[in-house]
Amino acid sequence: MSEQEERNGGVRESFARQGLMRHLGARLKDLAEGRCEIEVPYREELTQQHGYFHAGVTAAIADSACGYAAYTLMAATDSVLTVEYKINLVAPAEGERLVARARVVRSGKTLKVCTADVFGVKGGKESLCATTLSTIMALAGRKDGRAAPKKA
Amino acid sequence: MSEQEERNGGVRESFARQGLMRHLGARLKDLAEGRCEIEVPYREELTQQHGYFHAGVTAAIADSACGYAAYTLMAATDSVLTVEYKINLVAPAEGERLVARARVVRSGKTLKVCTADVFGVKGGKESLCATTLSTIMALAGRKDGRAAPKKA
Amino acid sequence: MSEQEERNGGVRESFARQGLMRHLGARLKDLAEGRCEIEVPYREELTQQHGYFHAGVTAAIADSACGYAAYTLMAATDSVLTVEYKINLVAPAEGERLVARARVVRSGKTLKVCTADVFGVKGGKESLCATTLSTIMALAGRKDGRAAPKKA
Amino acid sequence: MSEQEERNGGVRESFARQGLMRHLGARLKDLAEGRCEIEVPYREELTQQHGYFHAGVTAAIADSACGYAAYTLMAATDSVLTVEYKINLVAPAEGERLVARARVVRSGKTLKVCTADVFGVKGGKESLCATTLSTIMALAGRKDGRAAPKKA
Repeated sequence: MSEQEERNGGVRESFARQGLMRHLGARLKDLAEGRCEIEVPYREELTQQHGYFHAGVTAAIADSACGYAAYTLMAATDSVLTVEYKINLVAPAEGERLVARARVVRSGKTLKVCTADVFGVKGGKESLCATTLSTIMALAGRKDGRAAPKKA
Repeated sequence: MSEQEERNGGVRESFARQGLMRHLGARLKDLAEGRCEIEVPYREELTQQHGYFHAGVTAAIADSACGYAAYTLMAATDSVLTVEYKINLVAPAEGERLVARARVVRSGKTLKVCTADVFGVKGGKESLCATTLSTIMALAGRKDGRAAPKKA
Repeated sequence: MSEQEERNGGVRESFARQGLMRHLGARLKDLAEGRCEIEVPYREELTQQHGYFHAGVTAAIADSACGYAAYTLMAATDSVLTVEYKINLVAPAEGERLVARARVVRSGKTLKVCTADVFGVKGGKESLCATTLSTIMALAGRKDGRAAPKKA
Repeated sequence: MSEQEERNGGVRESFARQGLMRHLGARLKDLAEGRCEIEVPYREELTQQHGYFHAGVTAAIADSACGYAAYTLMAATDSVLTVEYKINLVAPAEGERLVARARVVRSGKTLKVCTADVFGVKGGKESLCATTLSTIMALAGRKDGRAAPKKA
């Protein structure tokens, strides 16, 4: 198993431990060096007051996608932590599902700057509903498990 | 019923329509002119990979609290929309529950700038886990119901 | 003169009225529908404590570039206003000059969401030093002149 | 000389090396543990197209104030670096001068989260024109001088 495959395995294992992603019904779709895609199908449980996807869902999958895109560029012994992000909600998040596509814009030793676009998919047609810019931190030597600390 | 009571009723009704808030188990705790408090008890379904509250939960209640704090200052005929927000996750979100407290920093005619602090509550002791800065928009003459459009 | 040329003329006139852009030595390089490029040559007057370009310069040209990129998509009778922006400073801003390239990501009626990348140029080679995400507002019917109000 | 006085001396020395702060006419007014205040008098050279202070000036003094507020909590051997910030421009920046007041919200080992409010002062009366939220980084063992590297 290559180092990249091992890291990707670590990402999938970490994703599986996120109770919220399961609770939302989110799925890790795609994973590559510095990239990650997460999607979530529509359900009444995920709505805001007008019946669209709630911004909390949009933000949650964008954030997780950024975190895991960054994680693909870290050492297997690192833990990953979102320092902060900004999100612009540019259109109603509607459709059969939402898909968040994240990529690393700049990979520093400690900090990775990432961006994600989130699309609503309706009848196979995607339209942009949000865009994010975020800062992700690598915590060296703290393997990404349940007992790991995560204070910056 | 005063105009403020009517608006607060509108906020509670709008909150009740948010499928996600129900799915997360979030509760609207407090509501006053330009202020809103939302809390959510801990559950395994709300965790990230280390067992803390997922940032998606933290962000979702902070965003809803900002939106409704702003909504208390809008006309009853307006609809409310989050334009964008930024969140800094300053410490692990841990405890029996999370509480988000939002207030309007600046109330313009169209745009309201809000801030929210989110605290983890552990044995009655609160500690700051996140802080947000957000821009909320009033959509004039589009009552906040299921059919309302929300494009800026 | 086409409507687009007229608007571009309005942008150049507005830029020329910005005392700060002149004071920094910034130049409007390129302008197209939904796009704008501004650059500024290096001077000791623009530095931070380590001798690189100060983040204030980086942010100022990125912000102006976003504002004018958005302005190209507004009516000639509108005024332009930055609601907010976020900037990530991803590397030292060094070189003979800085160049900010902005584009409109989403053009709503009232709000335009823009992004800008800022590059340091050293011996003709560009390297990314900052990236921004911003919200720009059109103020309808308030021509962009010295007496215009700009409160959101 | 106490350790705090030594650190404050380091801040003043670092500020004095910022060519841009001098070029804008900005002054370091106040400095305390986790707090910093910077002000700048009005000049035609600092304006945007409507004659108010340019957002670039507002942002520059807010950013420097946050950086130095954070720097007061770092070791004398550390260097300081702005990772990112977000600014909301809530009202026209007008008056005889602008004043930025920053404080550290959360002081982690590597990262400090800061906030700054910027006020326009007109006839002695202050009014809020901007608010920021930022992430500042301590670079351990890289004294804050002209030769120091600053890549995250």
